[in-house]
Parts: sequence; structure tokens; C-alpha cells
Amino acid sequence: WKGEFFPGIPKIKYEGPSSKNPLAFKWYNAEEEILGKKMKDWLRFSVAFWHTFRGSGSDPFGSPTKFWPWEDGTNSLAMAKRRMRANFEFIDKLGVSYWCFHDRDIAPDGVTLQETNANLDAIVALAKDLQGNKIVPLWGTAQLFFHPRYMHGGATSPEVGVYAYAAAQVKKAMEVTHYLGGENYVFWGGREGYQSLLNTDMERELNHLGRFLQAAVAYKKKIGFNGTLLIEPKPQEPTKHQYDWDAATTANFLRKYGLIGEFKLNIECNHATLSGHSCHHELETARINGLLGNIDANTGDPQTGWDTDQFMTDISEATLVMLSVIRNGGLAPGGFNFDAKLRRESTDVEDLFISHISGMDTLARGLRNAAKLIEDGSLAELVRKRYQSFDSEFGKLIEDGKADFETLEKKVFEWGEPKVPSAKQELAEMIFQSAL
Amino acid sequence: WKGEFFPGIPKIKYEGPSSKNPLAFKWYNAEEEILGKKMKDWLRFSVAFWHTFRGSGSDPFGSPTKFWPWEDGTNSLAMAKRRMRANFEFIDKLGVSYWCFHDRDIAPDGVTLQETNANLDAIVALAKDLQGNKIVPLWGTAQLFFHPRYMHGGATSPEVGVYAYAAAQVKKAMEVTHYLGGENYVFWGGREGYQSLLNTDMERELNHLGRFLQAAVAYKKKIGFNGTLLIEPKPQEPTKHQYDWDAATTANFLRKYGLIGEFKLNIECNHATLSGHSCHHELETARINGLLGNIDANTGDPQTGWDTDQFMTDISEATLVMLSVIRNGGLAPGGFNFDAKLRRESTDVEDLFISHISGMDTLARGLRNAAKLIEDGSLAELVRKRYQSFDSEFGKLIEDGKADFETLEKKVFEWGEPKVPSAKQELAEMIFQSAL
Amino acid sequence: WKGEFFPGIPKIKYEGPSSKNPLAFKWYNAEEEILGKKMKDWLRFSVAFWHTFRGSGSDPFGSPTKFWPWEDGTNSLAMAKRRMRANFEFIDKLGVSYWCFHDRDIAPDGVTLQETNANLDAIVALAKDLQGNKIVPLWGTAQLFFHPRYMHGGATSPEVGVYAYAAAQVKKAMEVTHYLGGENYVFWGGREGYQSLLNTDMERELNHLGRFLQAAVAYKKKIGFNGTLLIEPKPQEPTKHQYDWDAATTANFLRKYGLIGEFKLNIECNHATLSGHSCHHELETARINGLLGNIDANTGDPQTGWDTDQFMTDISEATLVMLSVIRNGGLAPGGFNFDAKLRRESTDVEDLFISHISGMDTLARGLRNAAKLIEDGSLAELVRKRYQSFDSEFGKLIEDGKADFETLEKKVFEWGEPKVPSAKQELAEMIFQSAL
Amino acid sequence: WKGEFFPGIPKIKYEGPSSKNPLAFKWYNAEEEILGKKMKDWLRFSVAFWHTFRGSGSDPFGSPTKFWPWEDGTNSLAMAKRRMRANFEFIDKLGVSYWCFHDRDIAPDGVTLQETNANLDAIVALAKDLQGNKIVPLWGTAQLFFHPRYMHGGATSPEVGVYAYAAAQVKKAMEVTHYLGGENYVFWGGREGYQSLLNTDMERELNHLGRFLQAAVAYKKKIGFNGTLLIEPKPQEPTKHQYDWDAATTANFLRKYGLIGEFKLNIECNHATLSGHSCHHELETARINGLLGNIDANTGDPQTGWDTDQFMTDISEATLVMLSVIRNGGLAPGGFNFDAKLRRESTDVEDLFISHISGMDTLARGLRNAAKLIEDGSLAELVRKRYQSFDSEFGKLIEDGKADFETLEKKVFEWGEPKVPSAKQELAEMIFQSAL
Repeated sequence: WKGEFFPGIPKIKYEGPSSKNPLAFKWYNAEEEILGKKMKDWLRFSVAFWHTFRGSGSDPFGSPTKFWPWEDGTNSLAMAKRRMRANFEFIDKLGVSYWCFHDRDIAPDGVTLQETNANLDAIVALAKDLQGNKIVPLWGTAQLFFHPRYMHGGATSPEVGVYAYAAAQVKKAMEVTHYLGGENYVFWGGREGYQSLLNTDMERELNHLGRFLQAAVAYKKKIGFNGTLLIEPKPQEPTKHQYDWDAATTANFLRKYGLIGEFKLNIECNHATLSGHSCHHELETARINGLLGNIDANTGDPQTGWDTDQFMTDISEATLVMLSVIRNGGLAPGGFNFDAKLRRESTDVEDLFISHISGMDTLARGLRNAAKLIEDGSLAELVRKRYQSFDSEFGKLIEDGKADFETLEKKVFEWGEPKVPSAKQELAEMIFQSAL
Repeated sequence: WKGEFFPGIPKIKYEGPSSKNPLAFKWYNAEEEILGKKMKDWLRFSVAFWHTFRGSGSDPFGSPTKFWPWEDGTNSLAMAKRRMRANFEFIDKLGVSYWCFHDRDIAPDGVTLQETNANLDAIVALAKDLQGNKIVPLWGTAQLFFHPRYMHGGATSPEVGVYAYAAAQVKKAMEVTHYLGGENYVFWGGREGYQSLLNTDMERELNHLGRFLQAAVAYKKKIGFNGTLLIEPKPQEPTKHQYDWDAATTANFLRKYGLIGEFKLNIECNHATLSGHSCHHELETARINGLLGNIDANTGDPQTGWDTDQFMTDISEATLVMLSVIRNGGLAPGGFNFDAKLRRESTDVEDLFISHISGMDTLARGLRNAAKLIEDGSLAELVRKRYQSFDSEFGKLIEDGKADFETLEKKVFEWGEPKVPSAKQELAEMIFQSAL
Repeated sequence: WKGEFFPGIPKIKYEGPSSKNPLAFKWYNAEEEILGKKMKDWLRFSVAFWHTFRGSGSDPFGSPTKFWPWEDGTNSLAMAKRRMRANFEFIDKLGVSYWCFHDRDIAPDGVTLQETNANLDAIVALAKDLQGNKIVPLWGTAQLFFHPRYMHGGATSPEVGVYAYAAAQVKKAMEVTHYLGGENYVFWGGREGYQSLLNTDMERELNHLGRFLQAAVAYKKKIGFNGTLLIEPKPQEPTKHQYDWDAATTANFLRKYGLIGEFKLNIECNHATLSGHSCHHELETARINGLLGNIDANTGDPQTGWDTDQFMTDISEATLVMLSVIRNGGLAPGGFNFDAKLRRESTDVEDLFISHISGMDTLARGLRNAAKLIEDGSLAELVRKRYQSFDSEFGKLIEDGKADFETLEKKVFEWGEPKVPSAKQELAEMIFQSAL
Repeated sequence: WKGEFFPGIPKIKYEGPSSKNPLAFKWYNAEEEILGKKMKDWLRFSVAFWHTFRGSGSDPFGSPTKFWPWEDGTNSLAMAKRRMRANFEFIDKLGVSYWCFHDRDIAPDGVTLQETNANLDAIVALAKDLQGNKIVPLWGTAQLFFHPRYMHGGATSPEVGVYAYAAAQVKKAMEVTHYLGGENYVFWGGREGYQSLLNTDMERELNHLGRFLQAAVAYKKKIGFNGTLLIEPKPQEPTKHQYDWDAATTANFLRKYGLIGEFKLNIECNHATLSGHSCHHELETARINGLLGNIDANTGDPQTGWDTDQFMTDISEATLVMLSVIRNGGLAPGGFNFDAKLRRESTDVEDLFISHISGMDTLARGLRNAAKLIEDGSLAELVRKRYQSFDSEFGKLIEDGKADFETLEKKVFEWGEPKVPSAKQELAEMIFQSAL
């Protein structure tokens, strides 16, 4: 079957910045070393099965627009297998080592959960085979938002039967992720939130969510799955208010329910901007809280109020993202997955490749720029100098928690009015831009 | 001096909903009992000195527009005293029992901190006298944002001398609040945040903020001040990103720095909406985290992206606010302070009264509506019913944390597809509206 | 078939504000006169076929949730007929006189346009019959956004064949609207806009749109259709940028292409707020430009950045809407259509009724409040007084365009510094609220 | 006095992209030709007197932070003269040929308008002298928003005396702009809008604005001023709703009041994004309506809801801006003025230079990138191809307005279902990014 799905598309190669070939990398050179690590190890790219192979182009105002040659219009088991083969040919031609998936996107629902699980097993067995020894899931997850049973939430549904169903589904998804050698497992609480506080008992729902995640941790340990558990914050959509609003909200939840050591965060840039933060802010907030685990690599439209899940093409944003990643010492066992989809109006098979190449090149370019900034050193030096008054003995006293209000007041009487230098923001911006 | 400042304005009385008198209450009847408590005890209204007496009407594009008859155009100590008398005449005519203040708004800066403190002492002595035994501060606070020394922050300034200065200022403000019998002390970190991450060490700044608040707790205990310490979340403005973004962000910070039992939150409705949440959401988030301590009673303009600090006039919003307050068993020792200002173009002395009466009446009307909803009971019943499947034995097992994934999966195999009833949101909205 | 679809639901009656019956009107009393006109004539309510009968509950993250008892899961002609009967039973029980529709929502697509038109004719014949002599369409429209052929737009598609197809479809939809006695015809350019300016020739697309609407006007006249042509502004969604962004943008377009006398606007409150305006602003902008023709009665969620199409329940907003309608002397031949849908999680048949009753009652309550304000007169008087300096002789000179800069300067030298009174905004808000 | 104000700052030179000198241009090389025109002629940079010399660093929460060595703390006539000299030394060192100003920012208010005009004349005489024969105003304008008399607007104030005052002020500002050889005159209606519709007669205010601008056109002609009249759209701030919301709204206003041939637009990028549009959208909308006259070169913060007026540093945005400028054949007699200010926390004199250099370099880099894109041609070719079906005979029929609905329908019956190709947005983005 290799070559069956994308017969006209060659294996994508690095041709350098001057190439005009849309089917070549201009910035991503997998084996090249940057700051002591290969580009592929900094970036750990993963193809997202759902957008790339199940994205139909439908939207709230329109029907599907994608009619890929390998699709037969059904969601049969046979079709699911054929699609999985397309996935692995795609991954191979793109030259990446990871994929990621929702249970329900790779295999069709059956009439009962048992039957659904059997369908999933059949596809997973094939995927295991197709993975060979080169490819594994960056992560797996359970889709707890598409089926009408989850309309009020999964772990936060007011119906006890739905809570149980969600648990059973996560149990299975965790098992198959483990079986496939997945390096992480993700929770995205698509319907864990509310549409209106008038008919919602938010406190009870949050308690249920806490119980659910505690049980997930226990089960992970029981089956010996060593991957990282990740939560992906999102402020809203589909619900009016998602419980995992942003990184800080999720950190508060984890602390409150005793889960802080058990989870990391999967930060999505488009979710960051929808919550009113820059992507860089969310990454830094996660990093500072010891929670930066993975990045859903995409971007939103700055003028739209919903999740557009576009491939990132902004060099400046990519450079900021990579600065956080480098400060974090990389993301492993996490990485970058492309939670990004073709525009509804992009309907050529080659568009699937062009978009991924563009997204990979953008982050690779960001990595190169970030390395330039770090090697140049003048931005870091500007920041270091701003805080140098705290590198004094008295500064240390404060940072060690030993300076009480009386001591501090005495110092003010001694020192008088403090000097306050310029923040040099424009200079910082000039230095930053010069690395792009 | 009583009668000197507002000679034409009578003591404001309750005249009931049919009154057309703009200088009378239509809904707020201080001594009337609602749900077993007097209205004045549910509402605990406080006049905010800064907006009411220092609000000049200036904005980023325009100079002051208010020229109150008692002002002489200076910020002298004599003027500060005269203004304080106006404040107490205003409070008396409005019939409230609380006021609140920033240190720098009630007394002028001196050349040194010592001189500034002496100015403050002089005004505080007068205020103590004018308070008599009927009026106390709902809270006091230190203004750490107006003076240029705080341009990079107070506790989060990169300059150690500014950190010390901020501490000395808070120390003094806490002392005078205590001396005046203040029931709470508030932190609003006006400049605690960043303008750009490029020149900011966010981690170090947050650590400094943690140390600062730990020292504040220690000092509070040392001087025997028993009032509640409050933090007021705000997402942005004046900085691009304030560290106390919203209730959940602040709760995460408190948990991380071991401060969770020591602080409560002062929720401002306009700050809630600027952070992308409804005010009701922020109140409920604070309440559920055990942190609801006070309300900055105001409202924003739904179409503007900055803090407009308007007096609340929306009945629906006021009803939701009061539902949270009632669920919280009231706010004491906190209350409602009017962090609300006259529009720049409202320049009559009577506008000061009209705006406060309107704000007080709106919340009083909200309280009456909330009581109607509670007494009617059908909204609460709708919510109770939604969650009743968890009131079962198996629901209890889950809520007690005793249902592991295997047990839950077994139940699904036993139960099959769960039934999922309608959320009845439109019915809930109909019931809610019927109480307005 | 009458009684077949909603057997448990009675004809909805007016029971007054004290009624607790969710299936009764509390404020809408069709025959009652308000300001000299019956409520039903001020409000001219219309049921929107698409949301009420084709709304499946699907969203970008979830499958359909509504499984109405009369649906057989197909989109057959037989099913379309059965659904149309349900529509008329619904309209009858609700007691309204108008409905509105998209061509493709009432009848299924065929393989060719000819076949599709035949399907449409079959359904329209039935609808004509069911209408009797009491009910007509408030308006009809062509759905030019759902089918993949329209993915780049209809009139603004870069494909000439799609432009032609859109024209043919509008031609037919206009004909059937005319045949059914429709009082208006609406254009909503769902895909008339762009996703990215990089691949778009906006000028050429706008020229095409101009040509298209000019042809529509010509055809309307040719067939003797006397209904009003309406354009419905929307800022974005599904496209990143819709060409009919808001009322002013659409007015500019109409003026530029010589269409200003030929069209009016259909203002949707949710679209207004998505474009950064209050609904009242858009209504007033339309009215002042002589373009207020119809209202898509719904509301959005103030915290979400997409079109939620909720039934309006906010009394304050409804009162402002009705103030504009009264100033406009009513909307006829336009009216109010409910471009509003049940929440995805509202799945009971009765929810269809509850939501419509709630929306109708809200606007009826708004009408009663607006009438109270007008009868009281003090708000209008406040406004009149603000402008009274222009009611002078010199004011008239200016308003007549006879005061040149030299004359005006001379007056300033004569008058000196002008007096500028308070805007009394808080008083205006107090008066407004007192009518709610 | 040359060298008195910025003694440590050299004349800024072009040193090329590899320079690390913050006080040198890396991309802006004034005399270098790009696409047949010198960079300085494409860009026509202008220093904005108000931000650069009157920006104090104050904001709604804080006092001034800038204490430039040449300021004496007063707003005296002597100080105004000294400041004007600083302005011309700055312009000279930066190497630009234009400046722009508000009347009230360059000269102090007097007690009467006559006295104020005399002050203005004194400063204007000095400026005329300092300009020599190399420098002129890109534009002048009247500041109709800062003084409390304008709190309800200038031309739209409800007070007839304020309308007259505004006219007298514009008359004088136009005269001095003409005297100084200014190439344009700008209207920015800072307070022309409303805070609340409840107390506003929007129709009457818009009529007054129409009369005012008609009188301005007449006076311009009378005095023989040949510069372009420009209006600068802004959606809100300081008012809740400005009448010149965006380019389309302003175009509608100009058409309605018969002013469409008499004005062009001054587009500000930060205003564009505050109105929900990309800057590129606003530029293209202005261009397509024949109204693109000038650019207020700045940028906003994508996460803040107010005007931050930052210097543009985003290469991608600058490239899009320059694409519009090139399509427009340049902007002359308009140009680029820096409606951009130092951050409040940037307090070094050199920051004034760094920020301008950074802003100039960014636009120069944008110009180079845009030229690369145009010379490469593949983006334009992608767009051309998308519309080629309209380059047919039948396409021409449509574009000429000769294809009626019947003709179009006939074509559909003949052609059947149209083919709809991919929009290739990702490819367009890839090509665009490759030029950065």
C-alpha cells in the first residue's frame, strides 16, 4: 500500500531557505544540530489523526468539502483501516516519528461499548503493525465530546451513567495508548464546563472531575503506564465556559485536588489567545508552575473569537514559542502535535502536505531564531541587568523570605527615594526583531 | 461643617418603587428584613473615597472636568481635611456605614516617606474623629501604582529599593486601617504584572510577590489586626498582563505560595468581564474556592475593552450577584464598595448622589429578586433534579472517591447506553426572568 | 394531522405576569393595544423554519442531539412534507402569523438544479395550502452557504459557474417567496467574504456582489414582487470577514453601488454584538440611514466570540430594541423573526415552545417598558433639553448649513468660553431602569 | 541650539542588517531605490509632535514618568519654543522630512481664544523658521478632545457654543497648517461619538458633523489650501462609540453628506484592530473606496482592548501594510506619521530614538519584503488564477452588468454543477512567509 495514497508526492526533503519548492523544507533539517540537540529532538513533531484524516471541512454553516480519493463515504471498519494506512504513508513521507489520536476518530462506534472496544482493538492492532519500530503515538486520548451522550460533559455530566461511561472509555483509551507505546496521554475536556450557571452546580461538577482524574492516575499506575498525563486548557467552545480555562486555572484545580505532581499541561496557542493571553504567556505560566509538557502547535486568527486551528506561520510567535521550549530544556517526553487543520476551502491532497511543511518550517525557523537570540546574548543580558539590584545581599535577604516589613521600612528611611531606570522595552523589541 | 458641602441635598430616604424622586431610594430600605437579615447587613455598602472625591474626570485624552465647589485646586493638607469632611457629610446623607480609601488619595505626598506618613497621620486622626462610633472603613489599602517609582510594579519591581518602599507603604497603610477600625485590608496590584515578556523575568517577579504577601501576613499578625486580607483580581490595565488575572489565577498563586488560608478575594464585576468571565462566574469561582470576601460593586461596558467602573444598573446582573452573596451567607466582614465613578461628562454635585442611589437601588433590587427566586424554589429544584442520579448509592461511591475505573467500566457493561435528559436552560432562563 | 406533532401542547394563551405556567404568555397579549397599535402588529413574530425544524443540535465538536418524534432520520421529500406540517401546527399553537425559510431547509436537494427546483415546488405547494389565508412568510431566502459549491462564496465566488448558480437559486427563491405571499426577501451572505486577503481580490469580489444585487432588483421588478429586499449584516463567521460587516458597512456598499433606495436591513442582535456594537446602536444606525426593515430577534452570549443565536431574555435589551422600533413607526412590512435556536442540550419537544414563549414574552415586555418610558416622557425631555441650544436662531443657521467658519469664529469672539452642562447619564440610566 | 538637546546622539545612519548598533538603521536606506522609487518617497516618514514631545507617560492609573532634561515643568510659551527646537533637532538627527502636530500641543492655551491664537502664531513663526526649506508638516490638526469644553464633542457637542468654538479652532489650525506648507489636514474626532445612547440624539449629532465638515471644505477652498483633508477612523476610546468607527463607516458618512470627493482617510493600524479588522483590511477597504490617503504608523497589543499606540515591530504586518501602499501607487501627498509613543516605563532620551529607528526599520523591511513578493510574482499569479473564470466572455458580461437572472439560470441548466477548486490559502501563506 505504500505509495497508494499520495502517489504524486515525494518524500519531503530539506532544500534550504532559497528553495521555491512547496513540497520541500526550507528551514526544518531534522538531523541538524541546534544548541546541542538535533532539530527533530527539539521539535518531536506529531501528526494529529483527527484533523488530517477526519477533518471533513464541515463547519456550523456548511457541509463537508473534502472528498479524499481514498475515502468511500462510510465510517466502516474497512474504511478505518484504509485510512490508517494513509496516515502512515503520510507520516513516512513527511519524515516525522509521532502521531496522535482520539479513540473514536481512528475506529468506528459499535452498538455497545464492548463492540466499540473491539473495533478499536482491530484498528490498534493494525496501527501497531504499521508503526514498526520507528513510530509511536506522542499521545492518545478519549473523545468525550462528540457523541450526544456527552452533551452535558463526561466526568462532569449530571448523569452518573455518563460519568461511568466516560471512565470506561478513558480506561480503554489509556490501555491502547500504552499498548502502542504512546509517550503521553491527554485529557481535553471538550464538554467539561457549562453553558449556563443557572442550571449548573459548578461545585459538584468540579468535585466529580477531581474524582475522575484521581481515578485516572490510579489506573495509570495500576497498568504500569509511565507516560505523562496531560491536561489541555481551553477557555470556551464548545461550552460557554470550560473548566480548564487556561494554564493558571488548571494549575489551581490540580493543586486543589491533590493532583499537582501527576499532570502536566498541553498548551495550545489558539486556546491561549482565546483566553486573552499570548501563547508565550501560557507557555511561561506552565513552565514556571513546572507544568509545561506538550504543545498543540497551531495558531488562531487574531480577529476571530473561535478556535480556527490554523497551522502556525507567524515567525515571531514561533520564535517566542521556541524560547520557552529551550528554557524548559525541551519538551520530551512531550512534543509538538499539529492540532491544526486545512482551511475548509483547501481541497487538494497536496494541501495536506503544504500545510504541514509550512507549520514545521515555521517552528524550525522559530528554533533557529531563538538559538540566534540565545547565542547573541544581548536580550538575556538586558533582562539580567534589570533585576541586578536583587543580586545584592539585601536582595537575597528578601528572596530568602527573611526581610520583614520593619526591616524594609528601615531601609527606605535610610535610602530615601529609589532610582527607577528605563525598562528598555523598545530596545528589547529591536533586538528580538533583529533575530527574525 | 455638616450641611456645608451638599446644602441642597436632603438625607436620602426610602420612598418605594413608585417614587419619581431621583434623590430617594426606590428599592433600598436599610432596616427592612429580607431572608432573615436586614438589607443593610446583606449589603454593607461602602463609599470609595478615590472615585467619589478624587475622581477628576480626566482620561487618557482629556483633562479634568469636575470642579466641585469645595475644591481649591490644590492637594494641600488643608484641602485634604476639607475633602474628608465632605466625604463624611456625603456618607451621612447617603445613610451608609462604611467607607474605603487608598492612603495617597486621602492625604498628600510629602518630600520624604516620613513626611508623607505624617500627612497621613494628620488626616487619619481627623477621619477617626469624623467616623464617630457609627462609621468605620470597610477596608484600607496602599496606592502602589500612581507614583512613577512604581512604574515597574511595587512588590514586583526589578528595583530592590522599590520593593522596600512598597513594603513600608503597606506597613503604614495597614497600621492606619487597623487604627480606624477597618474590617479588611485590600491588595490591588495595579502595576504588579508586565508590559512585555521580552524584558521581564516573570518567575522571579512572582517569587518576590509571594515573599511580599508572606511578610504582610506576618506583620498583620504582629500588630494584632484581625481584619481579612483581600486580593482584588484584574486581568490587565494598566499593565498588559496583571499577575492577579482572575479568581482562579489568584487562587493558584495563593496555593503555590502557601497563602491560601490567609487571603480572600475582592471581586470586581468590571474586572470579571474584562477577563472574559461573567461576574457571576468569578463570584462563584471565589465562593467554591472558599475565597469570596468582598465585592467591588460596579459594572463595565460590554463593548469596551477597558475598565469603565460604572455604577451597576443592570437588574439581571445584580440578581445573579446577590444569589452568590446569599449562597455565601453574606459577605461580612466584607461588603460592597462602590468602585464606580461618575461618567466624565457628569459634572453636577447631585450626580454624585444620583449615581450612588442608583447603584444601591440596583443591588437592593437584585437582593429582592434573588430572595423571590429562593422563596419560589423552582429554579433550585430544577438544578437539584439535574444531579439526582448522583444522590444514589453508586453516586455516593463516586463522590467519596471509591469508584475506580474497573468498577465504573463494569457498570457500563451492566447498564448499557445511559439516558441523557434535556438541560432545560430555556426554562431556567424563563424562571429567572420571571423574578425580575 | 393537526394535533399529530405536539399532542401534549395546548394552544398558548396569555395568562398575565403572575402565571407560573411555562406554556403560557405572561407579557404577550396579541390583541392588546399599546401606543395605539395591537401588540401583534408591533411585533409581527415569525418562526424561523431552519432553527426550529432543522436545528439538529450539532456543533463543531459534536453530532446531533435532537431526535424529534416526527423525524425519520432522512431528508426525503416525504419527510420534508411531514416536517412542514409540524411547522404549521407549531405556528398555529404559538398563535403567530408569519414564518420564514431558506429554500434548502424546507426541501431536499436533487441531483440537478431542475430536480431541486421541482422538490422545492412540491413543498411550496403544500406550504401554500397549509398557510390558508391567515399565514404568510415574513420572508424567504436562498441558502447560499451550506453546499460545498459555495465554499468560496455565492455572488463573490471566484468561479463564474458558482455566481451563475447562486443567481439561479435566488431567482427561484424569490419566485416561491412571491408565490407564497411573502412580504420581504432576505439576503444573508453567509460565504460572501474572505478567509484571507492573501488569496483574495476583494475589489473584484465586491464588484461582483454589486452586479448580483443589481440583477436581483431588476428581477424583483420584472416579476412584480413588491416585498422589501433586505440585507442582513454580520461581521464574521463562517468567513473571517463578511462583506456585510455591520449596518454602516452595508449602507456604504449600497450607496457605492447605487442600491440605496432598493434595500433595507435585517438587523440581528447577536450579529450586532459580534461586530462590537450594541444591538441598539445597529438598530439606530439602520434607522437613521432610513434602512431599518426587519429584526432577527435573538441574543448572543456577551462572553463568547461566535454566534450563539439564543432567544432573547434580557429585559433591558428588549426595551432598547422596542424603543428603536417605536421610533421607526414599527417595522411593517418587516417584523421580528426568531433567528434563535434551542441550546444543544435542550432536547424536549416542549423546549421548542418554552423558548419561543420566552422570546416573545421578552419582546412584549420590552414593548410595555418602552411604552412606559414614552408615556412618562422624562427621558425624552432630558434628551431634548441637552440639545436646546441648537433650537435657537443661530442653531438653525448651523443646521441649515448657512454658518461658515468665519461667522462661527466671530460668535466665539463675541461669546467667549461656552458653558457645558452635565450629561446626566446616571440620571438617564436611573429613569430607564425605573421603567423595567 | 543644534546639538543642545541630544548631545550624545549622532545623526542616524544606515549600517545594514548586520549592524548591532541600536542607533543605526538596518533596513531603512533613504536614498535606495525600491520598485523605481526611493525608500524615503515610498515612506514619507513624519514625527508626531504630541507623542514624542508631549507624551508624559501618564496613564489612567499613574502620573507622568518622563522628565526630559529640556523640560522645565511648565507649559509656558518659552518652554513651547524650546521644545520646538528639540523637535527639529530630533527630526534632523533622524533624517526625516516631515512632522505633524495638534495646535494645542505645540502652543499653550491662553485665557481667550484670541490669546490662544496669538500663542499659536508665535510658535508657528518659530517652526516656520526652523523648518527651513527641507521640512514641512505632513499634516496639522486641531485638538478638539482634551479641554473640558469638548467633553461632549466638538462638532457634535449638544452646545451650540462648543460647535462654534470647534469651528473657530479648526479654522485657525487649517490656516497655520497652510502657512507652514503642510501637505494635508487631519480630522480626528476624539470626542465625536457618544458614551450612552440613552442621553444622545445620534441623528442630530451626525447632521451637525456633516455641516461642520461641509463648512471645513468651503473654508479650505476659500483660503486656497490644496492639501488633502483626511479623516482618521477609530472605533472607540475615549467615547464608547466614535462616529468614525472604521473605514467603511466613514465612507458611508462621506457619501451620505456629499463629501466623498473631498476627503481621504488616515488609517491607523491600532484603530483597525480595535474595530475588529486587520490593519491590512482597513487599508484595502480605504484603497478600494478610493480613500487611502495616509497611515498612522503604529501597532496595538493583540490582547488589550485599548489604544496602546506602540511602534510597529511586526515584520509580517509591515509587509502587508506596504503591499497596500504599493498597490495604491504610494501615499503622496500623504505619508506615514508615527502615531506611536514610548512605553510609560521607557524613560531614557535614547529610547525616543531607538523606538523611531525600530519603527522606521520595520516599515522599510516591510517595503523590501513586499517588493520581493511583487518581483517574485507567484502570489499575484495564485490570485490571478483564482479569478480567471471571470476573464472569459461570459465573465465579462457579468462584470459589465449585462447578465440578468434568466440568462444566468440558463447557463446553469447548460453547465450543471460547477467545479470549485482549492483556495490554496496555505500555499499563499507559505509564499508570503518566504518573503519575510
